Amino acid sequence: MSLNPPSPEATLEALIASVVPTDAAFEDAAWARLDSLTKPPRSLGRLEEIAAHIARIQRTDHPSAEGKAVLLMAGDHGVVAEGVAPYPQEVTQQMVANFAAGGAAINQIAASVGAEVVVYDVGVAGDVSLPGIEVRKVASGTRNAAEGPAMSRDEAARAVLVGVDAVRAAVARGARIIGTGEMGIGNSTAAAALVVAYTGLDPSDLVGPGTGLDGAGVSHKARVVARMLEVNRVAELDALGALAAVGGLEIAALAGVAIGAAAHGVCVIADGYIAGAAALAAVRLCPASRDYVLPSHLSREPGHRPLLDALGMEPLLALDMRLGEGTGAALAMGIVDAACRMLSGMSTFAEAGVSTAQ
Amino acid sequence: MSLNPPSPEATLEALIASVVPTDAAFEDAAWARLDSLTKPPRSLGRLEEIAAHIARIQRTDHPSAEGKAVLLMAGDHGVVAEGVAPYPQEVTQQMVANFAAGGAAINQIAASVGAEVVVYDVGVAGDVSLPGIEVRKVASGTRNAAEGPAMSRDEAARAVLVGVDAVRAAVARGARIIGTGEMGIGNSTAAAALVVAYTGLDPSDLVGPGTGLDGAGVSHKARVVARMLEVNRVAELDALGALAAVGGLEIAALAGVAIGAAAHGVCVIADGYIAGAAALAAVRLCPASRDYVLPSHLSREPGHRPLLDALGMEPLLALDMRLGEGTGAALAMGIVDAACRMLSGMSTFAEAGVSTAQ
Repeated sequence: MSLNPPSPEATLEALIASVVPTDAAFEDAAWARLDSLTKPPRSLGRLEEIAAHIARIQRTDHPSAEGKAVLLMAGDHGVVAEGVAPYPQEVTQQMVANFAAGGAAINQIAASVGAEVVVYDVGVAGDVSLPGIEVRKVASGTRNAAEGPAMSRDEAARAVLVGVDAVRAAVARGARIIGTGEMGIGNSTAAAALVVAYTGLDPSDLVGPGTGLDGAGVSHKARVVARMLEVNRVAELDALGALAAVGGLEIAALAGVAIGAAAHGVCVIADGYIAGAAALAAVRLCPASRDYVLPSHLSREPGHRPLLDALGMEPLLALDMRLGEGTGAALAMGIVDAACRMLSGMSTFAEAGVSTAQ
Repeated sequence: MSLNPPSPEATLEALIASVVPTDAAFEDAAWARLDSLTKPPRSLGRLEEIAAHIARIQRTDHPSAEGKAVLLMAGDHGVVAEGVAPYPQEVTQQMVANFAAGGAAINQIAASVGAEVVVYDVGVAGDVSLPGIEVRKVASGTRNAAEGPAMSRDEAARAVLVGVDAVRAAVARGARIIGTGEMGIGNSTAAAALVVAYTGLDPSDLVGPGTGLDGAGVSHKARVVARMLEVNRVAELDALGALAAVGGLEIAALAGVAIGAAAHGVCVIADGYIAGAAALAAVRLCPASRDYVLPSHLSREPGHRPLLDALGMEPLLALDMRLGEGTGAALAMGIVDAACRMLSGMSTFAEAGVSTAQ
């Protein structure tokens, strides 16, 4: 008697079923401690909310942000054939080499918060076998989603599992806070199509300049997105089917990062627009993963606000950024670290012998 | 022949005259470099603006935020006799002991960005001779400004010079980025009166709950502020005179921190409402110091927005905080660090061999 290994989709389904929801009792305990610390109650505003949220995820009233990892997923997009991006496709491969050499924005910003950056090739069109790059190529870029599905369901599930595995490895290295990052020329087009597929919002609300299109370019991109949705009949697809049809390999992998984080009980900080679309995919695939996701910043990409609204999340930062790579997530990691240290390290009024309000 | 030492006010005047304005040429050079780095131009939004600003202050296109110090000035306020604060005055002294023991919010948040915290007693009403506390007491609290001047001009100038000296010592230890912090029960009342004195804004726009007054308490506080302004005839006073009449010892010291930072050519990050009032005092005493000051966060204290408008500054963060101590400045230091590393450490398109937009 021989057993076939489970399919990627069956493996993913089993993982999703294993995710344990967060427990509000830990958040309540964190608030009780927060209100006993030497400061006017609630005077640290959102910093206290973040601390309580991490406490809930980590199931403790002494949370920690020691061990930070930005998991940066890279992949290419067949839809660039439609002229939706101002940069040539080879920039994905070139930027992966730049990440490996430490010359990109995410390298510098992650260093400022003491986070490691781990770059995964999930679907770059060229060869990026370089020291420091984890090559887990599912395909050499997606197919043109304006002409048919970008990926098969099997490919999409395999890309999701790359993200799950990346979290497993990061947690094994000691990561407690995961950030999401991405690189992929054309991926703001895929992200817009995916968010429309999941939310029913109007494509014109989700399509923006990406890396720098002008007005005519944005209009063309919106028409391409509409064609992607129509050609693939996304209204008839389930969450994995839509991800396969109009998403991207790196977007699928980042959805896997969120699901993997939930499965491991660690916090994941979503970067900007594309990573946000991946977080939405994770929530549609695995609703219990939502509570493990924190937003980071509000991107200048106009579709990010309706996307965050669809997720029911309010960003921590608004610095007019629109780069991706995990740059917003890394900045937010610094705020999360401060929040955790505050909750875990401050003295109570009783411990410090400080008088309370009269 | 003997020479009398110069008066504190004369020493301060000489220092102010020595401040060199920032030079826009360094900011221009920083923008040229920013636009050559491997990212779509201006895609890091305010992070790029911050980097260019620090470059201007540090007179280089490779700025650095290595060496961070939060200078926390503590002092008491005679005006608490009017019932303007919900916490008893001894909390100032108790919190200084808490800072020394590492149990306060600023200790934890500063640690998250690798900043030292140096606490100065400029005018605490009680004894705070503790390891780690720099005792530079000008007076044991101010006098009740609702009955007459809080300080003499000489006391105010001496308090300003404590702040100047604190910067000199921090720079000698290697600090390149200074944050301002304060502790003083009653100091949101002094700050409100000072901002009204400098701007002519209505007291009702500047007075808020501070550490936690209710509506009736805020109304009472606004009446006390109006009396402080009237009793001291602030309309007839110069910048130092107004600071002496209605300000505070720790507020004067923080004005000195901003002036000292300008004199040493280093950046100072202003915390929230009270530190913002001190920054305004610095700008009124020494207009050339303004370009050395960066704002940090927008406080929940309602007077902070009109105060920032008066300074012509837009905060980096808005996290609904209202604690003081330098907590907002410390969080912003993390963002500034990321900005400096980005500008100084990223590769250019040419260096990395990355294609530019088509």
